[in-house]
Amino acid sequence: DEAIEEIRAKAEDVPEVYNVYVVDKEGMLVGFLPLKNLIVAQASQKLKDVLIADVISVPTEMDQEEVANIFRRYNLVSIPVVDELGRLVGRITVDDIVEVIEEEASEDMQKMAGIADEEEIRETSVFKISFGRLPWLLVGFVGQLIAALVLFQFEASLKDIFLAIFFIPMMMAMGGNSGIQAATIVVRGIALGELSPDDTFKRLSREIRVSLLNGMVCGLLLFGIIAIFYNPSFGLVLALSMLAVIINASILGASIPLILRRVGVDPAIAAGPLITTFNDIIGLAIYLGLVTASLQYI
Amino acid sequence: DEAIEEIRAKAEDVPEVYNVYVVDKEGMLVGFLPLKNLIVAQASQKLKDVLIADVISVPTEMDQEEVANIFRRYNLVSIPVVDELGRLVGRITVDDIVEVIEEEASEDMQKMAGIADEEEIRETSVFKISFGRLPWLLVGFVGQLIAALVLFQFEASLKDIFLAIFFIPMMMAMGGNSGIQAATIVVRGIALGELSPDDTFKRLSREIRVSLLNGMVCGLLLFGIIAIFYNPSFGLVLALSMLAVIINASILGASIPLILRRVGVDPAIAAGPLITTFNDIIGLAIYLGLVTASLQYI
Repeated sequence: DEAIEEIRAKAEDVPEVYNVYVVDKEGMLVGFLPLKNLIVAQASQKLKDVLIADVISVPTEMDQEEVANIFRRYNLVSIPVVDELGRLVGRITVDDIVEVIEEEASEDMQKMAGIADEEEIRETSVFKISFGRLPWLLVGFVGQLIAALVLFQFEASLKDIFLAIFFIPMMMAMGGNSGIQAATIVVRGIALGELSPDDTFKRLSREIRVSLLNGMVCGLLLFGIIAIFYNPSFGLVLALSMLAVIINASILGASIPLILRRVGVDPAIAAGPLITTFNDIIGLAIYLGLVTASLQYI
Repeated sequence: DEAIEEIRAKAEDVPEVYNVYVVDKEGMLVGFLPLKNLIVAQASQKLKDVLIADVISVPTEMDQEEVANIFRRYNLVSIPVVDELGRLVGRITVDDIVEVIEEEASEDMQKMAGIADEEEIRETSVFKISFGRLPWLLVGFVGQLIAALVLFQFEASLKDIFLAIFFIPMMMAMGGNSGIQAATIVVRGIALGELSPDDTFKRLSREIRVSLLNGMVCGLLLFGIIAIFYNPSFGLVLALSMLAVIINASILGASIPLILRRVGVDPAIAAGPLITTFNDIIGLAIYLGLVTASLQYI
């Protein structure tokens, strides 16, 4: 078998061979041959008879995250890379892809935690680490100055019903946690290619129903505790605030990454401090707005 | 070459072959042969001459995350699995590992977002999604009831200097964000096997220095703003509180995952609502404690 002889000669120069890609005279990719098939093939068989013509390839300009998703979807070990004319220009092997997948996951996690420049786990420069983390801390800082102004607007209500102050941390935290839960699922779904733009409406409606359910459970619990230890009408205001804050946070958490994708920004940066800061400001306004509106009934 | 004939016969039954593992009469793994070498080998060569004896294997009971780290470290395509006596019992191929890596990353991200049961991105049952997310929301709920009690303890100080209330969201958020940044790096480092137990002290000292720097930057900024618009002594109290809250949050964020690893709990569950809730409670106590201690100077 001539093909085997040829591959033997070439294989010595290439570090890892799993599949042999076959091109025609113009360099166009026409098929591939797993090494296994080459060994199993009978010496009498012709290359074109053992060749697998149905070959998945990727264009040179494809994003590495997308390439990784193709490897995952089709369980590949290597993939040929072709130029815009379909000519073979190289191959990507799965060991590169394993690196890519780990890196992309690390990058997304760090972005979700509000780390701007990718931080090496073994990074030793305190200044480098600090510079990577400061930008999002400062975005949060500005956001919380706005939150302070929101509280300032409601100074009169807060003085009227001082007890409302004690539940500021709870409203912030419950909104924050619900928002991050929704955002994480959406960001991961986008990264793995499992959430197409067509799913947007379905995803949002699902998040709203989940937040309605979770908001009611948490709201009822809070109502019960406050009704027993203080009074039912304040309990009701807190419960309704909790429900509204959780629904608002979930909608923001799910929609901000979807909007960012649409405008071409990495959704992962949204799922951290950005959503939490938005949620804090809007959540506090909802909570104190409801308290103010119901002051006469409490 | 007899070996080729034998492998040819067997290869037809196995879906993907990249390496052939060679065992002795007792079934003990003695080496491996990449398919490429098999093709390149001359027909006259003996198996033992082309065999690579230096073969990495994993025991049957190894955790899949560790196996994935070995694939990554050594750029493997397949790895033999041996029992406790060193006998070959099977192999793991890289396409399984790609799945494992994606799954582990998704799982860690979800745990860090406070999602208890792993949630499928395409999950359609609102109840299933809700049940997965509620446990950590309820942990946060209980934590924030404690935060409300902390505020209640400082009622007198809050009434004395009402302005302190407006900065409650800022202290919570800055602590929360710093804690999550530190925790994410530690959790990811542990997952990738890049943070050994010996690194604990170094890691903590690095986080303390980073938080000292970031806390000073944010604290100075806050001091400047408050000194200009209100008064320098209250600015100083806020700045010192900010510094203390950020340092505390970073230490907690870095050490809780390290402690959880030591006691055999997945560190990823720590890096979300758990650390944030702790940070909120302790952060508020630090902030209001400092305000109370300096009431006479403000």
